[in-house]
Amino acid sequence: MTSDSKASLANPDKSTQSNNAPLVPFGQRLVDAVLAKKNPVCVGLDPRTSSLPESIRPGATASVKEQADAFRVFCFEIIDTVHELVPIVKPQAAFFEELGPYGMDALAQVVRYATKRGVLVVMDAKRGDIGTTATAYANAFLGSGPEGTTAFSPWGADALTVNPFLGIDTLEPFTQRCHASGSGLFVLVKTSNPGSGFLQDVIDGSQLSTTGVSLSEKLASHVEMLAAESRGTDGYGSIGAVVGATYPHQLAAMRERMPSAWILVPGYGAQGGSASDVKHGMDARGLGAIINSSRGIIFAHDNPKYRGAEWTDSVRNATLDMIESLTS
Amino acid sequence: MTSDSKASLANPDKSTQSNNAPLVPFGQRLVDAVLAKKNPVCVGLDPRTSSLPESIRPGATASVKEQADAFRVFCFEIIDTVHELVPIVKPQAAFFEELGPYGMDALAQVVRYATKRGVLVVMDAKRGDIGTTATAYANAFLGSGPEGTTAFSPWGADALTVNPFLGIDTLEPFTQRCHASGSGLFVLVKTSNPGSGFLQDVIDGSQLSTTGVSLSEKLASHVEMLAAESRGTDGYGSIGAVVGATYPHQLAAMRERMPSAWILVPGYGAQGGSASDVKHGMDARGLGAIINSSRGIIFAHDNPKYRGAEWTDSVRNATLDMIESLTS
Repeated sequence: MTSDSKASLANPDKSTQSNNAPLVPFGQRLVDAVLAKKNPVCVGLDPRTSSLPESIRPGATASVKEQADAFRVFCFEIIDTVHELVPIVKPQAAFFEELGPYGMDALAQVVRYATKRGVLVVMDAKRGDIGTTATAYANAFLGSGPEGTTAFSPWGADALTVNPFLGIDTLEPFTQRCHASGSGLFVLVKTSNPGSGFLQDVIDGSQLSTTGVSLSEKLASHVEMLAAESRGTDGYGSIGAVVGATYPHQLAAMRERMPSAWILVPGYGAQGGSASDVKHGMDARGLGAIINSSRGIIFAHDNPKYRGAEWTDSVRNATLDMIESLTS
Repeated sequence: MTSDSKASLANPDKSTQSNNAPLVPFGQRLVDAVLAKKNPVCVGLDPRTSSLPESIRPGATASVKEQADAFRVFCFEIIDTVHELVPIVKPQAAFFEELGPYGMDALAQVVRYATKRGVLVVMDAKRGDIGTTATAYANAFLGSGPEGTTAFSPWGADALTVNPFLGIDTLEPFTQRCHASGSGLFVLVKTSNPGSGFLQDVIDGSQLSTTGVSLSEKLASHVEMLAAESRGTDGYGSIGAVVGATYPHQLAAMRERMPSAWILVPGYGAQGGSASDVKHGMDARGLGAIINSSRGIIFAHDNPKYRGAEWTDSVRNATLDMIESLTS
């Protein structure tokens, strides 16, 4: 099943409205958004019941449905607070999935709401599989357009994080879907956790290889090739990479190795990455990397530094502080 | 949030019923199921609208909800047909996710139904992430017990496929949840696709390493350690591995490297793996590996060899044929 037939199958009543106008590729849309907002901040939407602000935290006897409703309200309020400040938000699928079908329904609503408010969405779901299964994941997540267009997808994201462990052949169904729907990918290249080196830093020592590169570097070279194929006039393509802020030396090397690729940088703040660490990911124009903060922004009501009249004031203050740190 | 507090939060009304009786570990439950059914067949539930039997295939104008309903009916009928024949089924999350929230709701119902019919369920979702995010995925999928017990999870599976790319530290939240809920894991070690060698076959050539093992072998050694920790009286633990049937030589070597680990073997049939290929995964008692077939069984109505009065007769005939091939 091709992505086109999927889109029309899913929306048969509107298939005659299919919009075949050229889509603006994700790489260019992200350039435009970062230039418009004048900063590279990505707000991570990682709701957890026990950390929600008191005014919307469900009680101890709340049902799963009530918890999912609280996640939706919480994320809508955050989007209302940050949509004029930052170019992109990143929902973490796992926290919604933990609440079962109600959580997944809330996730879809959160993504649609962000799109409606004019902020880009990268879905952090780290999906990866082979062949037609990869195509199904791509069809599920990639595309933020209206129903009846080739850019529609059920979960409605502009971009998706993907896991390359199964091999670079398994990225192809995702890149095809990006091309058809104007969406983008962030391929895991070097993650921010302490144990990421176990596989990612391994040096290829096969007899056929004389390059001595690590797996992360091998992946980065492939991502650069894919990014270059979709590169727009501002120099960045729609296929990017995830490189953690917790390894600033590697981030700088990765920036050089992938001049055409957007880099999504997790690990800022709570995980230990600093503003000077993450600047290695950006070019002189302030483009090329988006810097994610989740807990540091969305749970800012717990931080005395950002206290405000409402919990959303704390979110706003923490966001403005991060923007200031990254752009000063 | 620990997995226990999650389980009670999700089911507050029944938290006083928490069942703290010792849980039978997944590794032992799979031994029991394979011995009871006298075969290692795993039926892959990979529904796709265009391949459904004519009698339940939704029309060209069907809504997403109608498609999800058809997936549910299709999978329920397959479970009715095979639950007395095989020990375990494997839903592929991607095909349900492709239909959005309606699809995910159907997936949860399919898993519950399989449990009700007495067949084990391994959820093929290939999840993987770090820290508390990995915990959220583990809480989402792992545990097939009733609400109000520590073995309850929203998606209700007995086991989950997981992707180790982020590092072996990221497996720990999953193994902890397995221990708390009597569930299991299959860690991707060597996948069945043609490009799986790009990362998985890389030989570790770092100066610190003198072992010359591939990444797959490195992962397998870690899986064996985790499996041995949870090993039951029949010799198999609850943490296993995925090793494709399409690389029979590696499958034999992996069997030796992981004597305590169950191996989930994809790639049989449609992907080219034969009965003699997959026998390398089993021990002399016929234990140690479960062999998955998806399309070859669930879409057997398309195969003249298995034609029957009803499409479920084709499913039954294809299942019996596969059992015969693997046990003769």
